[in-house]
Amino acid sequence: MPEVMYRRNYITDQIKKIFSKFGFAPIETPAMEKLSVLTGKYGEEGDQLIFKILNSGNFADKVTPDLLADHKKLTPLIAEKALRYDLTVPFARFVVMNRNELTFPFRRYQIQPVWRGDNPQKGRYREFYQCDADIVGTDSLLCEAEIILMLEEAFSSLNIKDYTVKINNRKILTGISKYLGQEGRETDLCIALDKLDKTSKEVVLAELKQKGFGTDSLNKLNPLFALQGSIEEKLKQLKEILSNEPEGIKGLEEVEEVFSLAKNLGSNLSHIDFDITLARGLSYYTGAIFEVKAGGVSIGSISGGGRYDNLTGLFGLQGVSGIGISFGIDRIYDVMNELNLFQETDNTSTKLLIAHFDQATFSDALKLITFLRQKGINAEVYPDQAKLKKQMTYANSKKIPFVIIVGPEEMETGIYTLKNMLTGDQDKLNRDQISHKLKT
Amino acid sequence: MPEVMYRRNYITDQIKKIFSKFGFAPIETPAMEKLSVLTGKYGEEGDQLIFKILNSGNFADKVTPDLLADHKKLTPLIAEKALRYDLTVPFARFVVMNRNELTFPFRRYQIQPVWRGDNPQKGRYREFYQCDADIVGTDSLLCEAEIILMLEEAFSSLNIKDYTVKINNRKILTGISKYLGQEGRETDLCIALDKLDKTSKEVVLAELKQKGFGTDSLNKLNPLFALQGSIEEKLKQLKEILSNEPEGIKGLEEVEEVFSLAKNLGSNLSHIDFDITLARGLSYYTGAIFEVKAGGVSIGSISGGGRYDNLTGLFGLQGVSGIGISFGIDRIYDVMNELNLFQETDNTSTKLLIAHFDQATFSDALKLITFLRQKGINAEVYPDQAKLKKQMTYANSKKIPFVIIVGPEEMETGIYTLKNMLTGDQDKLNRDQISHKLKT
Repeated sequence: MPEVMYRRNYITDQIKKIFSKFGFAPIETPAMEKLSVLTGKYGEEGDQLIFKILNSGNFADKVTPDLLADHKKLTPLIAEKALRYDLTVPFARFVVMNRNELTFPFRRYQIQPVWRGDNPQKGRYREFYQCDADIVGTDSLLCEAEIILMLEEAFSSLNIKDYTVKINNRKILTGISKYLGQEGRETDLCIALDKLDKTSKEVVLAELKQKGFGTDSLNKLNPLFALQGSIEEKLKQLKEILSNEPEGIKGLEEVEEVFSLAKNLGSNLSHIDFDITLARGLSYYTGAIFEVKAGGVSIGSISGGGRYDNLTGLFGLQGVSGIGISFGIDRIYDVMNELNLFQETDNTSTKLLIAHFDQATFSDALKLITFLRQKGINAEVYPDQAKLKKQMTYANSKKIPFVIIVGPEEMETGIYTLKNMLTGDQDKLNRDQISHKLKT
Repeated sequence: MPEVMYRRNYITDQIKKIFSKFGFAPIETPAMEKLSVLTGKYGEEGDQLIFKILNSGNFADKVTPDLLADHKKLTPLIAEKALRYDLTVPFARFVVMNRNELTFPFRRYQIQPVWRGDNPQKGRYREFYQCDADIVGTDSLLCEAEIILMLEEAFSSLNIKDYTVKINNRKILTGISKYLGQEGRETDLCIALDKLDKTSKEVVLAELKQKGFGTDSLNKLNPLFALQGSIEEKLKQLKEILSNEPEGIKGLEEVEEVFSLAKNLGSNLSHIDFDITLARGLSYYTGAIFEVKAGGVSIGSISGGGRYDNLTGLFGLQGVSGIGISFGIDRIYDVMNELNLFQETDNTSTKLLIAHFDQATFSDALKLITFLRQKGINAEVYPDQAKLKKQMTYANSKKIPFVIIVGPEEMETGIYTLKNMLTGDQDKLNRDQISHKLKT
C-alpha cells in the first residue's frame, strides 16, 4: 500500500544516504541463483527453506518413478535454479566472478528482497528486504569503526533514540573457550551465557554442565561473571583473565582499537555495549560481531553483522577479508510504527488537489496545474466531473494536504483560495503565490 | 555493477519524480503469486514462460508415476506458486483484494522486477524491471492526456530527444474492421498494416488476401492507404471514411479530445504520431493505445500502454476502467548507453578520497573526513596504510573526482591541497573551503 511504501522508502532513503556518505556503491544481483550455489551454505534447515524454481519445459523427462519417494534427490533434477536466501552468498559469488573488474577495497551496498520458505509471523516474512553494506579486501579496523558511525547516524536520522549496539569479537570467544579448556565450543558457551539476562548464574552453569563442561571449566567462568564497570574496565579485567591466551588478547586489542577509531570519527560510544556473550552467525565471523536492538519494543535485532575472513573462499577465492552490516528494514519499520516515529507528512507525495465545478472551471484547473507542475509541484486535478463533496473526500482519503476549488470567480480574477486540509486555514493567492507557498 | 546501478537509478529517479508530480503513489506486490492467479492471462506461450516455484517439503507425495509423462498436468500439483510475469495482473489482483481500502480514482506506480523464462538476448532478459503507472476507477480522457505529458517530460529529462509517441485507439480499429466487413479481425489487420513501413502496399494486400480478406474488403482499404497530412487532416479523412461506424467515430473523437487536453496541459504534440496500425496487446486494450520508439537506435519499443475496461474483471470486479503506461527501464538504459546520453558524473557518489602517508597523517585524515561527512559530503579515507600510488589508483578506478593527500605539512598547517582528478587542478584550502568547494 502507498502509505507503507512512503514509510519504507523513507527508511531506505535515509540509509542509502548514509551508505553513500561513507563511500559505499550500489550493486544488484539476480533474484535467481543456481541451486548449487546456495545449497550447503545455510545449514540443513536453511537448505529446506530455499525456494526452488522448477525447470522449464519437460522437466520430468529424466525422473524415474522410484525418485518420487525421495524429494531431496529429486529436487536438484527438476529445479536447477533457486531464489536468493540472503544477499551475502550472492555477493560472495559476485566478488569472485568479478574480481578482475572490481577495485579493492570494494565497498558495496545492496538493498533487495530475499525469500525464505518460513512460516510467516511478526518480524519474519517469506519475502523481505535485506539492506547490506560490506567492505571486502581490507582488514583495516577503520571499517569496524565506520560501521559503528553508520549505525549511529542511521538510527539518529530515523529518530530511533533508544537502541543498543552490542559488540563482541570472535577472537575473544575463542580465547575464552581455550582458557576454559573447551576449544571449539564457542557456540554452546555463548548460547548459555546469553541467558544471563533472563535467568540466574546457577541455571547457566547447570546448562553448561549438562553440555559436558567440567567443574574446572565452570570454576574458571567465575571471574567472567564478575566483569563490571565501564567498557575500559571490562577490557582490563578480561586482559588479566585471558593473559595466557594470545588470540583472546588480540581480540581485546582489536575491540580497543575499534573504539578508539570510532571516537576519532566523532562517536561518543554512548549506544555501545561491549558484550562477550554476543555470538550471532558465529560460523563465518572471524573478528568483530555486531548486533543492534531497539528499546521499548519486543522486536528481535534490527541490525547485525561482523567481520569474516573466508567468505569468498566458498567460491575459490582465498584471503579476502571482509566486514558487513545488515539493516533489517522490515523490523525497523515495525519498530518505528510501534513507537509512532513516522511523520504525518510521510503519507503522500501529492501536495495539492485542484477541484472544479464544471467543464469551464475544469479547463481553468488544467491551466493552473500545468503552471504549478512546471514549477516542480506534485499536484492533481480531479479527473472527472463530480460533486465537490466527492472531490474533497478524495483529497481527504489520499491525505493531500492542500486543496484549491476553482469556481467562476476564481477563473475570472486569477485569485484562488488555497485550503490547508490539516489546519483548515485558507489563503487567497495568485498562482505565483500558490507555487511559492507550496514549495516552502 | 555500481556504474550500471548509478545509471539505472538515475533513470528510475527521474521517472519516479514525474510519476509523483502527476499524483501517482508507489505500491509493491510480492514476487510470488499463486500460479492459478497467473495462468491463462498471457496466452499459452506466456504460461510456458512463467517461472514456477517448487512446493516445500515432500512435494512429490501425491504424484503418481503416470503423471511424469505429462508435465502440464504435473506442474500445478508440485508448484502452487510462481514468479510474477508482469506488474499488470498482480496489480489487478491487488485492486480487487483491496478495493474497500483504496481511494478511487487510484493512481499508482510500481517499479519491480518481473521474470520470464525466455531465451535471453539484447533487450530481452529473464529478469527485468517494469516501471508502470496506472489510474483505475475513471474513464476521464484527462488520464490519456496526462500520460502524453509524462512521456514527454520523462524523455526530455533523460535527454532523449529523438523519439516518437505512437497513439491509436482500439475503437478506431474496431470501426475499421466493421467498415471492411471483417468484424473481430483487428489483430490480423494490424499485423499486416504494420508492415507498410518496410514493404509495399501490394505485399500487405497479398498478406491480407491470404488471411481470407475478400476483394471487397481490400478495395475498401484504399482510402486508408491514402491518409495524409497533419494529425487533424488524418482525423478528418478518417471521420469521412468511417462515417457509418459509430464506434469508429467515437474512437476518433476520443483521440481528438485527448490531443486537445494534452495541448491544454502544455504539450505541443511535436513527438506524437497518430498511427492507425498500432495494435499492441490488443487483447485487453479498449480505448487509447500508446507506444514509444527511440530514433537512431534499433531497440524495440521503450514504453507502451493503453486503456483497458475489463482488467479487474479477471478477478471478479467489473466496471473499473483503467489506463496504464509502462516504461522499459532496461531498454531505456540500452538506448541511453548507445547514444552516449549518460553524464560522466553518474559514475560514483563518492566526492573525495583522503590519502595519507603514515599512522599520524591517517589520524589527521580521520579528523578531516569526520568534519566533511558532518557537512554532508560523501567521502572516504583509504582504510589501509599503503603506498600513495596504490591510493591514487584506487581513486582513479573508482572515478572519485577529488583527492586530498594528507602529509606532515598539511597536518601542521591545516591547509590541504584539493586535487581535481579530471582536470588536474590543485587548490590549497582549509577544511571550511574544502567543504564549500565540494558542495558546489
